[in-house]
Amino acid sequence: MKKILILNGPNLDRLGAREPEIYGTQTMSDCLEALAELFPSCEIVYFQSNHEGALIDRLWQANDEGFFGVAFNAGAFTHTSVALLDAIRGIEIPVVEVHLSNVHQREDFRHKSLISAGCEGVIAGFGMQSYRLAVQALLARKG
Amino acid sequence: MKKILILNGPNLDRLGAREPEIYGTQTMSDCLEALAELFPSCEIVYFQSNHEGALIDRLWQANDEGFFGVAFNAGAFTHTSVALLDAIRGIEIPVVEVHLSNVHQREDFRHKSLISAGCEGVIAGFGMQSYRLAVQALLARKG
Amino acid sequence: MKKILILNGPNLDRLGAREPEIYGTQTMSDCLEALAELFPSCEIVYFQSNHEGALIDRLWQANDEGFFGVAFNAGAFTHTSVALLDAIRGIEIPVVEVHLSNVHQREDFRHKSLISAGCEGVIAGFGMQSYRLAVQALLARKG
Amino acid sequence: MKKILILNGPNLDRLGAREPEIYGTQTMSDCLEALAELFPSCEIVYFQSNHEGALIDRLWQANDEGFFGVAFNAGAFTHTSVALLDAIRGIEIPVVEVHLSNVHQREDFRHKSLISAGCEGVIAGFGMQSYRLAVQALLARKG
Amino acid sequence: MKKILILNGPNLDRLGAREPEIYGTQTMSDCLEALAELFPSCEIVYFQSNHEGALIDRLWQANDEGFFGVAFNAGAFTHTSVALLDAIRGIEIPVVEVHLSNVHQREDFRHKSLISAGCEGVIAGFGMQSYRLAVQALLARKG
Amino acid sequence: MKKILILNGPNLDRLGAREPEIYGTQTMSDCLEALAELFPSCEIVYFQSNHEGALIDRLWQANDEGFFGVAFNAGAFTHTSVALLDAIRGIEIPVVEVHLSNVHQREDFRHKSLISAGCEGVIAGFGMQSYRLAVQALLARKG
Amino acid sequence: MKKILILNGPNLDRLGAREPEIYGTQTMSDCLEALAELFPSCEIVYFQSNHEGALIDRLWQANDEGFFGVAFNAGAFTHTSVALLDAIRGIEIPVVEVHLSNVHQREDFRHKSLISAGCEGVIAGFGMQSYRLAVQALLARKG
Amino acid sequence: MKKILILNGPNLDRLGAREPEIYGTQTMSDCLEALAELFPSCEIVYFQSNHEGALIDRLWQANDEGFFGVAFNAGAFTHTSVALLDAIRGIEIPVVEVHLSNVHQREDFRHKSLISAGCEGVIAGFGMQSYRLAVQALLARKG
Amino acid sequence: MKKILILNGPNLDRLGAREPEIYGTQTMSDCLEALAELFPSCEIVYFQSNHEGALIDRLWQANDEGFFGVAFNAGAFTHTSVALLDAIRGIEIPVVEVHLSNVHQREDFRHKSLISAGCEGVIAGFGMQSYRLAVQALLARKG
Amino acid sequence: MKKILILNGPNLDRLGAREPEIYGTQTMSDCLEALAELFPSCEIVYFQSNHEGALIDRLWQANDEGFFGVAFNAGAFTHTSVALLDAIRGIEIPVVEVHLSNVHQREDFRHKSLISAGCEGVIAGFGMQSYRLAVQALLARKG
Amino acid sequence: MKKILILNGPNLDRLGAREPEIYGTQTMSDCLEALAELFPSCEIVYFQSNHEGALIDRLWQANDEGFFGVAFNAGAFTHTSVALLDAIRGIEIPVVEVHLSNVHQREDFRHKSLISAGCEGVIAGFGMQSYRLAVQALLARKG
Amino acid sequence: MKKILILNGPNLDRLGAREPEIYGTQTMSDCLEALAELFPSCEIVYFQSNHEGALIDRLWQANDEGFFGVAFNAGAFTHTSVALLDAIRGIEIPVVEVHLSNVHQREDFRHKSLISAGCEGVIAGFGMQSYRLAVQALLARKG
Repeated sequence: MKKILILNGPNLDRLGAREPEIYGTQTMSDCLEALAELFPSCEIVYFQSNHEGALIDRLWQANDEGFFGVAFNAGAFTHTSVALLDAIRGIEIPVVEVHLSNVHQREDFRHKSLISAGCEGVIAGFGMQSYRLAVQALLARKG
Repeated sequence: MKKILILNGPNLDRLGAREPEIYGTQTMSDCLEALAELFPSCEIVYFQSNHEGALIDRLWQANDEGFFGVAFNAGAFTHTSVALLDAIRGIEIPVVEVHLSNVHQREDFRHKSLISAGCEGVIAGFGMQSYRLAVQALLARKG
Repeated sequence: MKKILILNGPNLDRLGAREPEIYGTQTMSDCLEALAELFPSCEIVYFQSNHEGALIDRLWQANDEGFFGVAFNAGAFTHTSVALLDAIRGIEIPVVEVHLSNVHQREDFRHKSLISAGCEGVIAGFGMQSYRLAVQALLARKG
Repeated sequence: MKKILILNGPNLDRLGAREPEIYGTQTMSDCLEALAELFPSCEIVYFQSNHEGALIDRLWQANDEGFFGVAFNAGAFTHTSVALLDAIRGIEIPVVEVHLSNVHQREDFRHKSLISAGCEGVIAGFGMQSYRLAVQALLARKG
Repeated sequence: MKKILILNGPNLDRLGAREPEIYGTQTMSDCLEALAELFPSCEIVYFQSNHEGALIDRLWQANDEGFFGVAFNAGAFTHTSVALLDAIRGIEIPVVEVHLSNVHQREDFRHKSLISAGCEGVIAGFGMQSYRLAVQALLARKG
Repeated sequence: MKKILILNGPNLDRLGAREPEIYGTQTMSDCLEALAELFPSCEIVYFQSNHEGALIDRLWQANDEGFFGVAFNAGAFTHTSVALLDAIRGIEIPVVEVHLSNVHQREDFRHKSLISAGCEGVIAGFGMQSYRLAVQALLARKG
Repeated sequence: MKKILILNGPNLDRLGAREPEIYGTQTMSDCLEALAELFPSCEIVYFQSNHEGALIDRLWQANDEGFFGVAFNAGAFTHTSVALLDAIRGIEIPVVEVHLSNVHQREDFRHKSLISAGCEGVIAGFGMQSYRLAVQALLARKG
Repeated sequence: MKKILILNGPNLDRLGAREPEIYGTQTMSDCLEALAELFPSCEIVYFQSNHEGALIDRLWQANDEGFFGVAFNAGAFTHTSVALLDAIRGIEIPVVEVHLSNVHQREDFRHKSLISAGCEGVIAGFGMQSYRLAVQALLARKG
Repeated sequence: MKKILILNGPNLDRLGAREPEIYGTQTMSDCLEALAELFPSCEIVYFQSNHEGALIDRLWQANDEGFFGVAFNAGAFTHTSVALLDAIRGIEIPVVEVHLSNVHQREDFRHKSLISAGCEGVIAGFGMQSYRLAVQALLARKG
Repeated sequence: MKKILILNGPNLDRLGAREPEIYGTQTMSDCLEALAELFPSCEIVYFQSNHEGALIDRLWQANDEGFFGVAFNAGAFTHTSVALLDAIRGIEIPVVEVHLSNVHQREDFRHKSLISAGCEGVIAGFGMQSYRLAVQALLARKG
Repeated sequence: MKKILILNGPNLDRLGAREPEIYGTQTMSDCLEALAELFPSCEIVYFQSNHEGALIDRLWQANDEGFFGVAFNAGAFTHTSVALLDAIRGIEIPVVEVHLSNVHQREDFRHKSLISAGCEGVIAGFGMQSYRLAVQALLARKG
Repeated sequence: MKKILILNGPNLDRLGAREPEIYGTQTMSDCLEALAELFPSCEIVYFQSNHEGALIDRLWQANDEGFFGVAFNAGAFTHTSVALLDAIRGIEIPVVEVHLSNVHQREDFRHKSLISAGCEGVIAGFGMQSYRLAVQALLARKG
């Protein structure tokens, strides 16, 4: 089975509760269940942290453990973390950048992604569906 | 049947021939055939133009004809056309922004999209698969 | 009779329908009828296009046909078209820049007009009345 | 009778004398006489000051006295005064921004208006006719 | 008794009336009464002007009269007046910068204070309570 | 009893020792004792971390535990952390931004606060008194 | 015979008439005649359009028809068109950028060429002679 | 006798007292006495105001009264007042810009003078001697 | 024995494996062994973390433990961490900034170091030799 | 015979040796010989220096000696020397700016030419042929 | 006798000939003669060079020779030379910055002086009189 | 013996005398003696000039003479000279950039090095020790 890491950055453990007018009301565990069902041939692994360092650690660990790919919603770190860009570039497995909202409709400082330059591609604006599309994009690379 | 418009901007009629190191070697008609097969319940309509005005005209026409949505790869106009943004905002049907390449790995002036602010979301970097993911994203909205 | 060209840029054929909270609900043909009535000594000619090139063509043609002046709402091209500036400067007949909305209350990229430097003057923010004021401004030049 | 305030900012008491190649040779009193004739149903009230504070005071006073509207040529304060913007926003009567010259053909620092964001609209570039058009624009709002 | 100057800049004589969604509905005289009660050992002196020069004059006069300190809400001048900064630096008595609203939640040009560099400190965002906190901050310096 | 969180960011566990010319010589525990005395009706809870993630975690936890409010001195993270802004906006309890020094008198990169936009208000420049004023500001909201 | 495309952008059909103080009084057909005489071994083909899309179309067509090279005066599109840059890069035949005037002596926004990065080289400032020098530069590449 | 206006802007009535490490300890009346002695053929007239409007008024009045020239230390208004620039340009008598300190050794925002573009020349950095040099520069123009 | 801390920031635990075209193939433990041999009079202590907070903690701890100095390769945090700058300034022991690659030959955002302003000096571009030079630079300070 | 100065700036004495992937392998003396042959009616004079001052001296000397014109490849000074611009403007003989490479395809700081504003025109990107085209451009001015 | 160095930068040996509409028609030797007459107690020494290095050498030499001061018109180097700033700061004798024209009325890149920060003061805009005023300013320092 | 060039730019012949609070009091000849002793297997050659052109000449000469490497303190030219960058890139021998002071603790315009992009690496902030470390870095490359 292909292992896929769903990796969420800061404040994204509260999806469904926090600022629902931006992020919707579906919770992350609803989403993970749906993903497991939709992709029975994949092992969907989830990790969230408010710590930039923990996300870097997890990317390297996923790489070492031979994950097939990463769907990464870096949240606010998208716009501030060069260290995550370096980690994404350093590992050998593909990373797809994911956003729930269309960041271009929000504040200016959310229009610039520091991590995009290291990612396979970007999927933004489709709410929880963004994760599903990211997994599909990962799977389409090889199969 | 749901009508989906695949809308391509300038120089994108040469996909498969032009700068293959960036855009790959698959042609657009290969891609359209694949889409037709993958989405039998949809009528996939294709339009390409090097004329900004023709793209604006086509967006309004698709709106008037009751299309279900648009997967729009505006090419270079992505970065220069406020008029396309106004058209996307003016029409009532959803538009998904599509890019073959990860624009964030290219020249600086390709990092800023003027049209994103009017689109449902963005899918970038997956080559011809980007169109497929965009159609899926459109379909997931209602169904 | 003095010929006056009312020239409208991209997406402005939908006035009265598109984004009414910004542009109001009056249609352009209502407006043209009112202008014809208000200025019986003028021939009011209307042209709209989503094509920058067609607008440039029309400006030169109006010049060649001896129009008295142009009330030009360049829409989104206001902010992106150096070619229209060059056309306005190239022709000999006066052009008044028109906007329905007060562009300074909208997005930042709408605060800068590239074409103002070539125009006689600017009238912005009075909805359909902006066209009337522009025609008056043109007529006041000579008469 | 509707009271209309013609409000002029710094150095505009010298119109007709100062820099005629930019502002023309008509004096302000010529202009006010013409306005009184053109709009017999209005009481045209004039105030000029080189003091930003005096202009703010006058705007509030006009508001308290139930003026119908203001045609405001803020002169150089257009580009430097946030306090005037706040006054324009604070009062309830409409303000039309007026300029004699087309500010976009002058120095760069005259291209940005700080007060536009609070005004009904802008009329610029028609010399003394700008005031007439502004009064018309004000009257067209209600009548 | 310690004399404390409550100094208000342009448009702040209308507090309670102007843009209540930003500034609240309490009037300045309500506020001054409350301050007098809260700080019986202080003489609370109030001055407001729409004139930058009058504010500068008042700062120097307060200095000459041996005031204990100033709670200064410079309003729009906060963002445009170097002359007030020079006055604040020139006098020997301490000045606390006060804002009713959290200026960082408003337009970009309100994010930068020119006068902060000369002030003891800044208190912003607590409505009329901001004045009370400023007086407390002044008193805490010596007492 | 109302629980108030005093939250300190990076390097602020060394107050009283580090750069005394900027931050003074009083230690944080002196300050906390003083606060406990001044506000007997409040439970003053203190947390400091050099880890951005730990501060985010603590904000959410305070929210979950029903704290009355937070006085937050984010230190250097003030100027670099979008993730803290998102946390402050995500939680429902009020946060007051606190700084010991007047950041506007220090390096340019300390003039911009990323977190202000999410906070109730800002108190800066009063040394350890800043915490006291922040607690008062919090208490004044309801009581 | 080697086919050379002389390609002119917007407003350049009026050379000899428009703004002669910048562009001189020689007409384009005078220039084309002179080129035909000077380069008898070449077929000089001329195309002008005010439509960006038509210029893109013509570049691809010239490429498909085996032209030897293009002398391209993109006029105002020089400074605004990423789509033309993409076309120039997409085709295989060489393009020389041509300007009649020395663009560096004109407005700031004419100092930056978006298309230079795709062209063989640039020739600017020699009036109608610029075309002759461009053809020579093209011929010197192979012969 | 030639009338020379020594015109001082905001906070400059306190010279000799305010920030002596920047401005020195000589007072303005010492300076004026010295000027009267040095230039017996001139009538040295002095005016200072903290009000921008009063300075504009005074410039026009000096012009109307046939002054020979103005030595103008605009203080902080140097960096913020377009209205003073317009006044200087509007009047016919020459103005020399004066600064006591070398503004280029102070804060960045003091490096840019808005009024220089209208002045005959600039003299900065020589303390009270700057006024003397300015008067000499004025006299050298005609005599 | 003098204790020297070799401190490495994010992703630098993978040296020798990650992006060898930039960082070379030598591993960090090879480097540490070499340092131990070269500097027998020093105790070389090594710490690496992907967590900004852990690096701050370690700097303070080194300070408390009386280390002789720090050779600090902050990796990506070099360009984003004000908190590390504050830590470096806060501690009393000297820190030398180290980079393996010449950061000026990489992306623009790597040209600016936020931490340089707090460090003794900078050594960049010599691969693993950079650490050796940094230790020598530290030792040369006192011996 | 018409004297033409071929003037080369810093590092251009090594053409043919230095960075051949940018500048080609032809040497400057090959080029000068070819020019002498191509233009028998001209005296081709060559001067190169790494000293900005020597280039300025040579421009004035050429002017004094009645040269017909200058083909000037200022190399790196193109982007940094205002003094060369002043010299070019000061002399009366025409100067054509020459570059071997298309500077717009190189680093950003090579996109801006400080000297273009003083030159007749620019020829860039044709290797050694650029000199030939420049001489032709000079000769075409008069003959 | 006090030795005063009149130091002129690039292209300033042609004063009286070059661009007279900017610099006037008086020659430098006329000016030096006048200075010698006006200041009989001074030895006026003149040096001009187009070489930045020669100007630096001359400043140090003047310092070593005990000159009383320098009146320095650095010409174009004013805007580009950090090395001259370092020389001015390095020497112990005072330097007054001189300009013939009011640089603020010329191109933007002439508005910024790199050397001002090291000079005693600035005198600009009085033609050849600028040198006289500079010498007076120097003499006024000690006498 | 390996020849090493110690190359110093403008004003660096005065080390030990000029601005000792920045550069220390050791003279350059002290330093050269120490280097000769420390590296007996090297021939240490020294060259200093205030002339950018002389430094370029010297770099090429060192290259032609087979020097082993260059330790280059370009002084102020570090921040302004593209020509030196081109020379460094043009030659084949390695160059190490050296600075005595930590340039990041000085003025903003000293934070950007134009020459770094061509150098092997950078050593800054260690006073005269910087030269020693640079020589070691050069030697470590081969031995």
